[in-house]
Formats: sequence, structure tokens, C-alpha cells
Amino acid sequence: VQRVVVFGASGYSGLELVRRLAGHPRLRVAHASSNREAGRAVSELVVEADGSLSFEPHDAVLDAVVDGDIVCLATPADTSADLAPKLLDRGARVVDLSGAFRIPDPEVFAEWYGFEHPCPERIAEAAYGLPELLPVPPSARLVANPGCYATASILAIAPLLSAGLVRDGAPIVVDGKSGTTGAGKKGSEALIFSEVGENLRPYRLTRHQHTPEIERALEMVSGRPVTVGFTAHLVPMRRGILVSAYAPAAGDVTDARLEEAYREAYRGSSNVRFSTTPPETGRVQWTNHTEVHARIDPRIDTILAFAAIDNLVKGAAGQAIQNVEALLGAERA
Amino acid sequence: VQRVVVFGASGYSGLELVRRLAGHPRLRVAHASSNREAGRAVSELVVEADGSLSFEPHDAVLDAVVDGDIVCLATPADTSADLAPKLLDRGARVVDLSGAFRIPDPEVFAEWYGFEHPCPERIAEAAYGLPELLPVPPSARLVANPGCYATASILAIAPLLSAGLVRDGAPIVVDGKSGTTGAGKKGSEALIFSEVGENLRPYRLTRHQHTPEIERALEMVSGRPVTVGFTAHLVPMRRGILVSAYAPAAGDVTDARLEEAYREAYRGSSNVRFSTTPPETGRVQWTNHTEVHARIDPRIDTILAFAAIDNLVKGAAGQAIQNVEALLGAERA
Amino acid sequence: VQRVVVFGASGYSGLELVRRLAGHPRLRVAHASSNREAGRAVSELVVEADGSLSFEPHDAVLDAVVDGDIVCLATPADTSADLAPKLLDRGARVVDLSGAFRIPDPEVFAEWYGFEHPCPERIAEAAYGLPELLPVPPSARLVANPGCYATASILAIAPLLSAGLVRDGAPIVVDGKSGTTGAGKKGSEALIFSEVGENLRPYRLTRHQHTPEIERALEMVSGRPVTVGFTAHLVPMRRGILVSAYAPAAGDVTDARLEEAYREAYRGSSNVRFSTTPPETGRVQWTNHTEVHARIDPRIDTILAFAAIDNLVKGAAGQAIQNVEALLGAERA
Amino acid sequence: VQRVVVFGASGYSGLELVRRLAGHPRLRVAHASSNREAGRAVSELVVEADGSLSFEPHDAVLDAVVDGDIVCLATPADTSADLAPKLLDRGARVVDLSGAFRIPDPEVFAEWYGFEHPCPERIAEAAYGLPELLPVPPSARLVANPGCYATASILAIAPLLSAGLVRDGAPIVVDGKSGTTGAGKKGSEALIFSEVGENLRPYRLTRHQHTPEIERALEMVSGRPVTVGFTAHLVPMRRGILVSAYAPAAGDVTDARLEEAYREAYRGSSNVRFSTTPPETGRVQWTNHTEVHARIDPRIDTILAFAAIDNLVKGAAGQAIQNVEALLGAERA
Repeated sequence: VQRVVVFGASGYSGLELVRRLAGHPRLRVAHASSNREAGRAVSELVVEADGSLSFEPHDAVLDAVVDGDIVCLATPADTSADLAPKLLDRGARVVDLSGAFRIPDPEVFAEWYGFEHPCPERIAEAAYGLPELLPVPPSARLVANPGCYATASILAIAPLLSAGLVRDGAPIVVDGKSGTTGAGKKGSEALIFSEVGENLRPYRLTRHQHTPEIERALEMVSGRPVTVGFTAHLVPMRRGILVSAYAPAAGDVTDARLEEAYREAYRGSSNVRFSTTPPETGRVQWTNHTEVHARIDPRIDTILAFAAIDNLVKGAAGQAIQNVEALLGAERA
Repeated sequence: VQRVVVFGASGYSGLELVRRLAGHPRLRVAHASSNREAGRAVSELVVEADGSLSFEPHDAVLDAVVDGDIVCLATPADTSADLAPKLLDRGARVVDLSGAFRIPDPEVFAEWYGFEHPCPERIAEAAYGLPELLPVPPSARLVANPGCYATASILAIAPLLSAGLVRDGAPIVVDGKSGTTGAGKKGSEALIFSEVGENLRPYRLTRHQHTPEIERALEMVSGRPVTVGFTAHLVPMRRGILVSAYAPAAGDVTDARLEEAYREAYRGSSNVRFSTTPPETGRVQWTNHTEVHARIDPRIDTILAFAAIDNLVKGAAGQAIQNVEALLGAERA
Repeated sequence: VQRVVVFGASGYSGLELVRRLAGHPRLRVAHASSNREAGRAVSELVVEADGSLSFEPHDAVLDAVVDGDIVCLATPADTSADLAPKLLDRGARVVDLSGAFRIPDPEVFAEWYGFEHPCPERIAEAAYGLPELLPVPPSARLVANPGCYATASILAIAPLLSAGLVRDGAPIVVDGKSGTTGAGKKGSEALIFSEVGENLRPYRLTRHQHTPEIERALEMVSGRPVTVGFTAHLVPMRRGILVSAYAPAAGDVTDARLEEAYREAYRGSSNVRFSTTPPETGRVQWTNHTEVHARIDPRIDTILAFAAIDNLVKGAAGQAIQNVEALLGAERA
Repeated sequence: VQRVVVFGASGYSGLELVRRLAGHPRLRVAHASSNREAGRAVSELVVEADGSLSFEPHDAVLDAVVDGDIVCLATPADTSADLAPKLLDRGARVVDLSGAFRIPDPEVFAEWYGFEHPCPERIAEAAYGLPELLPVPPSARLVANPGCYATASILAIAPLLSAGLVRDGAPIVVDGKSGTTGAGKKGSEALIFSEVGENLRPYRLTRHQHTPEIERALEMVSGRPVTVGFTAHLVPMRRGILVSAYAPAAGDVTDARLEEAYREAYRGSSNVRFSTTPPETGRVQWTNHTEVHARIDPRIDTILAFAAIDNLVKGAAGQAIQNVEALLGAERA
């Protein structure tokens, strides 16, 4: 059984990591860090957790990491950027759930994340790990786990690009819709139930930090330059992301051709499924599965492409565990 | 005080009509039809309703309509198409909340609504009434009240077209998101809380019947040909529509120029407001107000335009009352 | 038209006051105080508000209050206790929506509110105003507007006591269930959508401050000593309170006798209605109406009594406006 | 690996059974019956299900059951009463999730379920299986799986009775609150999101069929006669039951004594936990865990006792799997 150490274990992604690792046959949470919940039993927040596990301060957990450990960072980008080099230096392998190591160009990083990357020299060590399209090798030491919106967007769009179904050079419009856990576990007035319930709104217009991540991943998968415009919306539900992408079609594209492209792209992936009906976030909630779907709208010569995921699972903790398994040389789940 | 007769008064639009008319200084509900609730006090469903008002069968109400009445039809399109000519023949004026009289071309109607229009010769009598952009004259006898998605889409996009900010001939992508009352008050398994709660899904892909209505209204307002691709999504909330429109920009468009276009378009309209922050359906819920907003995304040279309304009020009953007031020669509310 | 001044206008009760006063034929908001939103147009938060109204700091509004004004305090209890004497000294009449003046005994107040009352000598001036059961006289200068849970509990239970249907001396169990706006507009982590959605929990067990308020009001209405045990629960919805009260029956009580007791108690009250089916908060949401209902459970010889209100309207702003109208000598709404 | 056959597999309890069995190390779904979904892949509704599993008609599955099978009936009570004898006759063991075999007295059954029991002679064969308090022996052939409200009520109240903390003969008031999946997967207008969202209501007053089940189980556990008054409420959430029970205290009861009673009762049960803070349904959602809590309210000399479960897991499928494991002689989960 492999030791896994979780930093930032009391946030939503961290709690989900602990929950899913509790039932995992080959992985075991050795330490769970949380400065604010330090000393509290983890099982008070995640009933499935091992009763003997307690939250510990970051520093104590950092000291406890040993060569051979796998560490999952469910911390903010600046904390991850600070911790990752220290952990690598201790001989641990790291799967980072933040955005700290997803953007190779430090200037692009600073533009979208709003601060200078503290260790730009380490970014090159990171492998971007989207298991169904961009799997990491077992030899990787630092894995950048994709963002939640990015995961859904890439899984929705990549098969179209790979199959040459999108008009070259045409920008792709991505309308993302997310439940509230994506905003994290923090007491912001804009996030209280009284404000979010029965409400719907776009946010962070034209500057969502997953935009360059989506473009880069799509380019890596397809080998083509891609421009994406991404707009995020907050939906009154806890878990789930639906991405609706609008891609100008290259030539005559039929629904049958679209379905074929997705089936081809995800042939070996048991947890990405082309749904013959429009996808629903409710069906993949609390699972590591993805539903994809696409249709041609011949009136505007545009492909409508969709993906539905659980933002905390496939969009965070579940995918991180896929990446941990990849580091262990395991077969794709 | 003007008599108003409401057909289909026990559906969500009908109930909202009764609710809002209950507090109206110059209008009074004389009859409320509902075959299924016939005999029941209206106040059991709408606590604000006059306690002496009971639901009556359609036929009884039809017989009670007299010359000079204004009739609001909150009935399905086929029922409205059947009732409207009879009511006009009795000397009543009609505001129809269904899609029966919104599409002048019977072939287009049949294509999108799925049945032949039963009285194509009467469609030409109908005036499409969107008060802020396409007000009806007091002399109108039959008013087609706009659809909910159509209202939000038109209010979001028309100012851009009128100001020449959209690239000629480029299709506009409209991503519509609606609460559940838009689907009506009916016991469908797909609409139960257990299926809709914590769920999000697109529906009726490429064939939503508001598509040609949006195109035509935008052409009437702007005098330009327009192509729109419309995609509907069901959101776990009861009331509210947010429309996110993506329109390729004509030349250099700035945020300031966008704001100016909306302020210009809605200068005289007290209930359409350009919000300087992203719009929220929650702020307009249970009101007849609309929030509009737009931003240029220079990376994809595309205008992001938004409108938020309450689908039952500005998207149905509230706008119908504006149209009733227009028939009375009242000032715009 | 009477000037009304609202303190604490940017909280949920304050916003609802502004919203409902915007459509009131005889009342007009002259000033709306909010330290945190000072300078912002009120219509940015309440679209129905007069566009020329802006939030002003508390101190500025205090200075602007003149003899003859009616002031509604939608402020926390300690702020209300501080402001009320100053306002009364300026010749204004005050309707306080907080708990500052609901408990006449300063020791009881301190025990349940957790702080010493700053002006115990002024409490005696306050009239507790529950319009249907304990109306205030037009001569009142300071009105204590009932709490939200208290309003529902009193309206559910008082008719039973007045009709002698409850076993003498037996404690009454009250299980209260509230939507989230009752907790106020503040960024607490325990109130975010991700924590409250799909969740249900009791809170503040055995020490909710509405307990002594309910007991005292029931004693005032019925002339009998009453003991109540109150338990609050947080429900994933924005607006609404449902109170389920369990009162041991005195002798043979029938459903018919129960209905009679309620109809008798609320004969002259157009906005409290005995529902022949179980009450629903959804039907009274966004209204000043109350639905009451009761049934005998013969197996345990206990009366089940229910009341449903909108906590922000009948439980706060709507009832405050009823009290303002009472001060003006208006008829009961 | 033990074969498990699921009848009624397309309802919410059936789907949850399939979901949880998909990840079970020693159990495997051999057949899943559903007349309405017959022919459809189970994985279209439960993404985790084995891709080769399809829904089959009841009759076909009945024919496929063999000696040694364990059958879970997630069917309505009348269907279960019809199927169980046939399955027992084929040599299968049966865990019934309906109420068909929970009430031993056919007259009591008819009174609360509204129809005559079709095979009263078989009821005596059934063992009521609540694993933590009333475990079934491995020799049982027919297990009555407890109702959802009943499970929560019994787990909340039994420790109080066993410890002698409740006043003899005093009725216990149980206020039950449930999410919507408890009402099943059916297209009833009263259950649509537009009616249930932002709404709260009691239902089936004084005649909920779990009442006699709760009384009988509490008597079996404690050996004392018990009278319970049960009131159900529908809450706008999908999953979760919170039961708030009000039990008159016997003598001086302290919070410490209460906590001791629960810790004693559930000492060996890893999935029932006394929470030191008020329980929350959100924390046990999608798990087989139960949170219990109790407090004395000295003002009314009454114990407040709570339990929170997921109605589909501990209240149905998860508990059924515990019972299946008991039949296999497995240790308590």
C-alpha cells in the first residue's frame, strides 16, 4: 500500500481526496494537513475517513514527508508553488491540484494568475496530466493536475480538433457553468446560499485563468494552434460543471461523424462516455466519469460540443488519483 | 377600471398574471379560466388574488367575454390559435402569451412548432409586442407577447446590431439558461426535484422554437439580416433566465462603446438597466426588470452580451401587462 | 404621503422594506442608511427602488430625521437599542425589527440575548405589535416588531390557547424550520451554498432567543401561562418559515373544532388564512400572508399546529409596514 | 462472489443498490429488473454500473433466479408481497426494501398501508433487520429492510429507551424531514422542481405508515411499550432525512448522560456516530453513516434527540447491503 500525503485537506478538493482515498485498495492517507483544522479528527468532516486520522499543521506534515511518498497538493497556487520544490527535494513525488504548474510560460502565468511565479525554473519539471488524452509517464516527479473547467473543456473539444472537424483558425467559444464548490470553502458574502440560491450569473469575464490552460492542452493533443474564449457562470448547485462549446465546423460535419470522433478519442477510456442524449451533470455527480456529446447546428455551421463532470472528482480529486495511479505504473482506471 | 380575462390561469404564467393584476390600479381580473381547476378559489393558488374569484371552465369564460374586454391567453400555442379568432370575433382584444402568433410565415411556424397553424390567415393581424423595442400601437387588436428566451435574447443583442457593432453576416451564438418554471406546471418525471436538483443539462438542441422568433425580432429592430444559433439549458432554480450571447465584433469595439449602445437603446425604458457588473437573475426575480451587460473579449474579437430576466414576469406575465397597458394608450411602464 | 426612514437598509429585512415601500401608495422612503453601502444607489440592490435614492451613513441619516418621521430599524439588537432613544428624542416614531424591545424584563433579555440591555428604562415604552392578535394603538411611539420564528409560532398556537384546547400547564413543543435569509446577509462559511445546499440541520439548541418572546406573546393573547420548547432548523431555501407545533390536547378535540378556533381568531384578518390542506411556505413566499393549519393526532392526544410565512415579509418587513400603517391609524391590511 | 438480483432496479433505491453493489468486493449484480426500462443499459442511468448489465422485465428475472441467490426487492409493497413468496419458493433469500413485511399484524398493516396483505401467512417468516440494533441471523430467509424515516427515528430514540431516560408512558413526538428522493421517481406534479424548490410542507399528517413500524422496533429493542406521533415534512433537497424527536425526560437527565447512552448503544457500530455538534444530513449524504445527537431542554423537561441519514443509503440501499452481508455471515460493516 502506497503512502499518500494530502496538503490542504480541509478544503473541498482535499476533503474529496480523503474521501476517495479512504476506499482505495492500494493507497492510504498517511497525513492530512490543514492549518485551520489542525488537531481535529478528519472523520468529523469526512465520515468515511479513518477514525485515527487527524488534521495536522502544514509544517508538521512537511517534516513527516519521506522519500517515496506521493504528495497531493490541494492548496492555493501560491502555497503549491512554495511547497512543491521542498517536497521534491525530500524525494517525494507531487501531484498538484492548483494552477501553479499548469502554465509553462512565466509571463503568461503572471498575466492570468496575477502574481509572479516564485519558482519559474521548476515549472519545466511538471507534466500536465489529463489521463485520457495526456497521460503522465510513471517516471514523472511533478504532475500538474488540470483545472476543473479546463478538464471539461478539453475533453469536450479535443476530439473535434484531432479529427479535423473545426475550421482552422476560428476561435472556439466556451460557455462554462459550474456549481459552487468550485469557488472553495470560504465565507464570502457573494457565496452564501441567500445570494446564490435561485440566482445565476457570469463571472470573471474575459480573464478566467483556465483560458490559456485550455488552449495549451488542446494544442498539445491536436498539434494545431487554438484560440478559445471562455466565460464562466455560477449555477445554484453544489457539484458539477457543464461546458457548452461552440466551434465553427470545417466543411460538412454530420452528427454521425461527430459521434465517431468521440468514440475514437475515448475508445480505451472506461470513464469518458459519449452520451447519445444531452449530457447531465447529475448523472456524473460524485463519480469520476465524464459525459460528452456533440451536435452540428447546420443553420450556423457550428458544432455544439458538451462535457459534464463533477468538478470535485473528475475536475479535481478523482483525476488526481488517476495521476497518482499513473505514477505507480497502474493501468488507466 | 378595465376588465381583463385570463385563459389558462392555473399555469405558471397564468398564475403570475393573476398575482400581478391583483395589485394593479387600473386593471381587474373579471374571469380566470382553467379546465382542471374549475370551481376552485383562485386564492388557494395565489394568496393575493381576490377571494371571490374562482377558476371557470374555458367554455364558460369564452361565453362571458364581451366587446371591450382585454383577454390574456396563457394557454398552449394550439389552444391560443383556436381561441384567439373567436375572441376577436366577440370584440375583445387579445394578448397571447403563447407562440401561436409570433411567426408570420406558416411554413416556418410548422417547421419549428411541429404542427400546421390552424388559422394562418389571422397571423398577419398580430403585432409582436416587445415594449422597449417594438411597442404595439393602441389600435392593435391581437398582440403576440414574446417568448421568455426570446425576450432576453432580443434585449441583449438588439442594441449591438442597431449600433452596428456586430460583424455583418456572422452568426450569433446564444447560450440560454432557464429556471424550471419555463417548462410549465406539469407532472413530468424529467422535471421532478429529484431529477432537476443538483443537475444541469442542455435540451432541445438546434431546434428550440424561439430561434426564428429571435432572428425576426432582431431584424425588425435593426433592419439587418441576422442568423442566430440558440441552445437552451435547464438550471436548478425556479425563476430566471440568463442569456449569454457571443457576437463577432465589427471593427474595434470597446467596453465604453458597448455601454453607450445599451444606454442609448434603453434611454426611455425605466425597467431595462445596463448593469456595470455582470447581471444576476436573482436581482430581477419577481420583478418586470431586465439587467443587460456586455464586454468585448479582444482575444477572440467577440462581444459577450448578457441579459437577465424573470421568465414568468418580463418573460411572460409582466410583459403581457405592459402590452395590455399599451392597448389602453398608457405610457410605457 | 408619510416619510419613512430605514436604518440598516442593506440587510435582507432592510432591502425588503425598501422593496415593499417602493410600491406603497401612502409611504415613501426618505432615507436609507447603510454604513457599508454608503454612496451606492439603492436600485443597484433593489431594482424597484427609486433611482434617486442612495444609501447614506447611519450618522447622516440620524441627523436628517425630523419630528413626524416614522423610522424603521432593520439593525442588529444592540444598534437598535442605541438608536431608538435618540430617534424618539428627535420626535420620530420607531418600528424596531430587532429583538431590542421585545422582552420587557432586562434580566430575561440579558439571559437570551447575551448582553445587558443598554437602556432598560426605555423598554417599557415599547408596544409589541403583531397586528392580527396584538395590534398597536396609533398613539404608540415605539413598536417592537415580532421575530420571524415568533410570528409564525404565535399565529399557529394562540388560537388553540384562546379556545382552551391545550392541556393546562403542558409544555408545547415547537419545531421551527427556516430558510437562509433569516440568518442575515453576512459572509459566514457555515452559510455558503456549498455548505447549506442539500443539507439540513438543527441549530442553537435550547437557547433560541425567540423562546421567551413566544411565551410572553402567547400569555398576552390568551391570558394563560405558557411554556414553550423551541428548536430551530436551517433548510436549504432562501425564504420561508414553517413552524410545526405539538400541543397536548385538553379533552376531546376534533379537527372541526380546531378549524373553528382558527377561523374565529382570524375572522377579520385578510392575510391569515386557515388552509384546509397542509400549509406550504412556497404559497406565501414574497407575500405578507400566513397559512395556518391544525390537526388532532388522537394516538398521542396532541394537536399538530402549523404556520407558514415568508420570514422577510410577514416575519419582518411586511409586518413592520402593517405596524407603520397602524401608527397612521390606517385600517388593518 | 455472491450473486445478487435486484428487482425494481430503475427506482431511486434500486439505482442506489446497483451503484453501491458495483463497487462491492464480494457481491455482484446478476440481474436488474425494470419493466419500464427493460432493454436499456443500466450504465445509462448509473454510470458506475457494469457496462454489460441491462434492465430486464420482472418476469424474465423471476425465471432467472436460482437456489442460493440473494434477491433485493426495491419494489412497491404490493409487488414485494407478490414476489417474495415466489422467490423464497425458488430457494432464494430475500431482502425486501418495501413495507410489505415490516408489520407482523395484518390488521395493523391494512390500516396503515390501505390494502389487505396478500400473504399474511408469510409475514411471520420475516426478520426485521436494523443491523446496529436488531441484526438478522445468517439463517434468515426473508428480511424486512426498515423504512427510511423509521431507520432514523429508531436510531435516534432507542438508546434513550434502553437507558431508561424517557418518562414511562409519555408519547414521543417525532418531527421527520426528508429530501425528495424518498417520494420515488415518478412524474407527479406535486414533486416537480417548480413546486418543491423554495418550498417546505408537512404531509400525510397523522397517518404515515412508518409510525407503527417505529413503535414496534423501539419495543423490540427496549422491551418497553412506546407510543410515537410522527409527522413528515418535505424539504427542498434530494437526499437526506433529519429526524427531530421530543421525548419527555424521566427524572434528571443531563447532556453527559445522554451522550453516554448513545456511545453505549453504538459502541460496536462503526457507522453510527454521536456527533458532539448538531447533526447535518449533508455530512452523511451519499454514505451509509448515521449521525445522532441529543440534548436535554430543562425548561420543558424534554429530551431533544436527532438522527441524520441519507434516505437512499442508510435509509434503503446501504442498509439492505448490510442485511445481505449479515445473511452471508459477514461481520457488521
